[in-house]
This record gives sequence, C-alpha cells and structure tokens, in this order.
Amino acid sequence: MHQSVMRSVPLVAAASLAIALGTANTLGAQDQAGAQDQVPTPQSTQGARLVLQAQGSFFIDGHTVRSNALTGTAGGGLFGSNEGDITVDQMYVQYMIPPRAGRHVPIVLLHGCCLSGKTYETTPDGRMGWDEYFVRKGHPVYVPDQVSRARSGFNATVFNEVKLGLRPPSDLPSITMASHKLSWELFRFGPHYGEVFPDEQFPVEHIAGLFRQEIPDLNALLPTDSNPTFRNLARLALRLHGAVVLGHSESGFFPQRATLVNPAGMRGLIQIEGGCDTTLTAGQFATLARVPILVVFGDHLGDVPAFAEFRLQGFRVCQRFIAKVNAAGGDATMLHLPESGLHGNSHMMMQDRNNLQVADLILRWIGQHVERHH
Amino acid sequence: MHQSVMRSVPLVAAASLAIALGTANTLGAQDQAGAQDQVPTPQSTQGARLVLQAQGSFFIDGHTVRSNALTGTAGGGLFGSNEGDITVDQMYVQYMIPPRAGRHVPIVLLHGCCLSGKTYETTPDGRMGWDEYFVRKGHPVYVPDQVSRARSGFNATVFNEVKLGLRPPSDLPSITMASHKLSWELFRFGPHYGEVFPDEQFPVEHIAGLFRQEIPDLNALLPTDSNPTFRNLARLALRLHGAVVLGHSESGFFPQRATLVNPAGMRGLIQIEGGCDTTLTAGQFATLARVPILVVFGDHLGDVPAFAEFRLQGFRVCQRFIAKVNAAGGDATMLHLPESGLHGNSHMMMQDRNNLQVADLILRWIGQHVERHH
Repeated sequence: MHQSVMRSVPLVAAASLAIALGTANTLGAQDQAGAQDQVPTPQSTQGARLVLQAQGSFFIDGHTVRSNALTGTAGGGLFGSNEGDITVDQMYVQYMIPPRAGRHVPIVLLHGCCLSGKTYETTPDGRMGWDEYFVRKGHPVYVPDQVSRARSGFNATVFNEVKLGLRPPSDLPSITMASHKLSWELFRFGPHYGEVFPDEQFPVEHIAGLFRQEIPDLNALLPTDSNPTFRNLARLALRLHGAVVLGHSESGFFPQRATLVNPAGMRGLIQIEGGCDTTLTAGQFATLARVPILVVFGDHLGDVPAFAEFRLQGFRVCQRFIAKVNAAGGDATMLHLPESGLHGNSHMMMQDRNNLQVADLILRWIGQHVERHH
Repeated sequence: MHQSVMRSVPLVAAASLAIALGTANTLGAQDQAGAQDQVPTPQSTQGARLVLQAQGSFFIDGHTVRSNALTGTAGGGLFGSNEGDITVDQMYVQYMIPPRAGRHVPIVLLHGCCLSGKTYETTPDGRMGWDEYFVRKGHPVYVPDQVSRARSGFNATVFNEVKLGLRPPSDLPSITMASHKLSWELFRFGPHYGEVFPDEQFPVEHIAGLFRQEIPDLNALLPTDSNPTFRNLARLALRLHGAVVLGHSESGFFPQRATLVNPAGMRGLIQIEGGCDTTLTAGQFATLARVPILVVFGDHLGDVPAFAEFRLQGFRVCQRFIAKVNAAGGDATMLHLPESGLHGNSHMMMQDRNNLQVADLILRWIGQHVERHH
C-alpha cells in the first residue's frame, strides 16, 4: 500500500463486524478457526493438471558487508563472535516456466507493502493466483520478494547494535505493520471496517487469510531513492532477455524506477494502484516513453471515506502521468476496471473473485502493446 | 544450524580463500559477480517436464493480537494510528502435488537457522531441490517457512516500542545472522574458512548462492518451549491426513516436538543433523515410539576443528536417543551417510552435488518404515 495522507477512523467492535458480514462469526473467531486456509491434498485438489518446463527459485545480486553485530548478545553468544561478513540486498525470485514458453514474454510480479510474493499465489479462498494463471496462458512467471522482505532477508545489524548499546533506539527503522482495520479500508473491501460493498469482489469471508499474508515491512532500512529492488528488477529483466514487470501499491512505481536504472530489459511496465510521479525530467519521460505502460485501478476509489481523497488524487495523478508519457511519444494506457465492465474490484484485485478476468484484461494489453512488437 | 558450544576461530583473508579454492576469484568477487545464480529462462531450462495435479501456498493458523506500535513513528505517522489488530504465529506453506499422489505419503520439509523454505528449492548451482525431486517420486510436498521467518512474518511490535521509547533496548530479541565464515565451518565445507575437503560434496564454487539464502533468524521472539511452529507442524500433518515431517539443524527436533503436541498426523519423523533430546520422560518416549524416526548425519563430523566436538557429541546424543526410542518399542534408525557409501556430505546435504542420492536413501527408508504400514 502507498503511504500517504492516512488518518485514523473509529474502531468497529467485533460484534458489529459479525452483523455487517451477515454471519454468526466475529472476525476474531474466523481468524482463530472459522476461516482457516484450505490445506490442499491429493483428495481435495482437482482441475486441469499444470505442466511445467521448469520451476524453482534463485537470487538476483546481493553483496558482502561487514557486520559487528551478528547477534544481540555480547561477544556473539553461542556463535562466539559478533564480527563477520554477511550478504545483503539480494532479491529472492521464484519462477515457473511453461512448455513452449518462447512464444510469450516473461512476466515479473512484485508485491506491495506489508506483503510478500504470496500476494500472487493461491488466493485466501483457495483459488488460482495470477502466478499460475499467467503460466497456464504460456508466460514464464517470476515472483520476487522485495529486498528486506520475506525470503530476501534484511540486514539485522542495526537492531542488534541497539540491543548491544552501540547505538541509540532512535537509530532503529520504523517497521510498518498493516492492522486489520487499515487493510480493510485501504484495500477497499467496504466503506468502514467490517462493512462490505454490495458488489465487493474480494472474498471477505476469507479475510483472515489476507491478514495472515501481512508481514512487517522493513523498507525503512533501505535508501528511498535507491532501493536495491529497483536495480535488481532491472537486472532480472535484462537477464530474462526482456520482461514485463508489474508492481502493486507500494511497489507500483518500482518498474518505472527500474526502467530509469536500465531500460534495456524492460518490455512493458504495469502498475496496479501505485503512485505515479509527474515530476520526472523530460529525459526521464523520454526513457519511460520507450516502454509500453499500463496503469490499473479498481472500483470504489472514492467510496471509503478515510481514503477517498487519497485514492482519487492518486488516480488523477496517474492520469496526468499517462498524458506526459504519451506527450513524450510513449504508449501509456489507463485501465480503470469499472470502465471496462468489471465492478466491485478492490485494491487486492489479484485475489478478487474475478481475478482471472482482471488478468485477462492485462494479458490482452500485453498482446496488443508488448507482443505486437515482438 | 544448532546453537551450542560454538567458539570463534581465526579469520581467513580473502586472498588465501582464493588460493584455497584454487581460483583467481576471491570469495568477495564471486559474491559480487562471479557466482551469480543462474536465471532460468525458456532457452536455458531443459529436462523432463514436471506435471502437477496442483501447486500453490496457504497458511496454517495464526491468531489476532493487539499492537500498540504498528509503526515506530509517534502517532503512527502516515498510517494515522499505532493501535490495531494484527495476525501473528501463522505459518506459510508452499506445496506441489503430483498426479496420482494418493499412493505416497506427503512430505513436509522444514528449514533450519538463518534460512527459509528456499533451502529445499533449486540448489545454489542450479540443480533440482528436494522439493521437486520428492514430487517427481510421487509424494505431495509441503515447504513451510518457520513462524517468525520469511513469508510467515513476525510480530514487530517490540522493535517499534523500543524505537518509540516505550521499552528499553534490552527488551529487544537477539537476532541471529550467520556469517560467511561461520556457515563454511558449521556446515562443514572444509576444515577452515576457505579450505575445502577433497571429497566435499557441497558446490563451494557457488557458495555465494548459499550466502544469499541466509536471512536473519528471529526465533528469539518466540517461546523456546512452545514455539508455535511445533503445533503448526502437528496441525499441518493432521490436516494432511498423515505426513512425514522432516526438520533440519535448528529445526531437527521440531518434528519430535510436534509429535509430543499431537502424534495423530505424524506418520514419520526425519531429522537432518539436528539436536536429539535424551531427557524426555518415559511417557514422551512412548509417544515418539508410535512413529518411525530417521536421523541423518553427513560426513566429516570430526574434521572441522572449531566444531568437531559439537558435531561428534551431537551424533553420540542422537545414537543414545535412538536407543531409548527403540527400548520404548519404537522404530528409530540412524543413517550415517559415510556408512551407507556416500562420502563428503556437508550439513547442507539437500544442496550437495549428490543430494538426490541422499534423497533416495530417505525415500527407501520411507518405503520400508512408513509406507509398509500404509
């Protein structure tokens, strides 16, 4: 999620949530037991088999730094030393490659704030994620964890230094966690926490499955203007001999930044409800104009009081961004889902009930704007 | 890795590492560029296609707690509040299910200290991991991230509380990071950092790929005696209607602890070079005796001076543990790889050059000790 102009709204009690959801469960009870994720077994899974040419994982980059606080225990505790080399800024990437994949451009799917690559896997209610769907449509798919998140790891030295008394607590980064209430409203499941839009596409009865996906965001450890994920994305795309790179929310503008690092591998940029930067230089717009760009927004942008202005303003800024790219000779498109006949889509559209219909619109854009030039 | 009786050893300079490795690169240079992970593309990947009945991911459990420090910024910064509900103690699990999988028992592969589920995926030199190999042999495979690690997330409240001045720095957990040198010696790639055993099976020319896998270990946030991963493993096995659960190093004894929580779903326990507990009660040994147990150790246990006593002692304790389980009527087996004809195996045997031969020995044990009773 994008961090801007947020303000607090009144808390809604669990009891009223149950009423709003029209169920006998409170959200709390669902979280404890009522809405456990499905555990897929040979008996429970059906459908068309998935045939892969290859699958697995790898890392992009990473470099060695010296740490003087490998642990937070004086002298290194059982490890015997707090001094040593560690690897940082690497980016974990999972992939699946379908047979005869050479016909279609690879797609990189990057997650947003307080989330991991899990974003694009099985949905909270057990349906297919975009990762598998794009593979089934013939695209090699690459799902990273952002640097400093999940399987990419982070440099924990500063935390241990503070514990060891080598630095003041004020040197700690501010770690961001998304509360249940914030997620509900910022992701637009309804106007207020516990209330659901009549046409809401997110499977709110499995909201606990989304809450389980949310993990601490340590990006405050990284330099804002040169987040290593930017260059890692550029290098990944280059080593894939060209890729469409998609970012979401917090990372919506990351593909743009990767392009400004090196456009050579970038065959298309997709940003799902992320921030747009209209203050780039003419030279930067000229670079972005070399790559087809798709900006996607869902429904109800103005219908959550706490974030209406934030979302509507974000939408308008992206419209101006698109105009500037196109004025520079580029090929940028706004896909506002309600205008394409899809209603009720949330900020987490990759997990919405109609997530494959949204994916189809993205695939159509790739076919028309990226692969047309193949 | 298991944390015990470690002590520091002299540092080896990068130049001597290069000499020991017999290459012109220093480890540092390899880490920067020389030993990048392969980036698999349709053009670079070959071999037999992988056919899956299903793949994806889900979470086990998790429950709601209140946080008063959703961020480390007074007032919650842009989020507008530091108060809110978050979900903690959930366990992320990835899975692959092969066609006609009902014939073979599911296998759960749990990683060790300072690592994630990546442990069992593509090896640092680009070969197939145990996850895919077991699937190709007909087993449904489930790969978790431990609670507080990687995609399972952690409760970051205490870190933000310290930053906000609500707690003293001494309340911070000691985060554990494994240095390059520690990894080399504790994982037994050679007698000292930069030196390689003549018959070493780990692909040390791709050591940088292992270093990239290593991420901070936050288990100090969790209660030692009731780590939520224990019960999550028990629940996962139960919901799989029975599974073989494998732990490695730090998590070697986790499958045992899961069995003591609830043995109902545990069809077999495998521990790869983990700690064994000989101090359990008679009642606890009687519970463990209900489940077939395999303990696996690699080669060169006494050949790394810094950790020789630690490893040899660990091996001996596991021998006594096995004797106690069997005395209680159980079925526990020691698989010491050199005694089965496999030489040079490291602590990271799931990534060694002969990792599939090690896997075959494990599969043979499953066939003889677990599926025989199916």
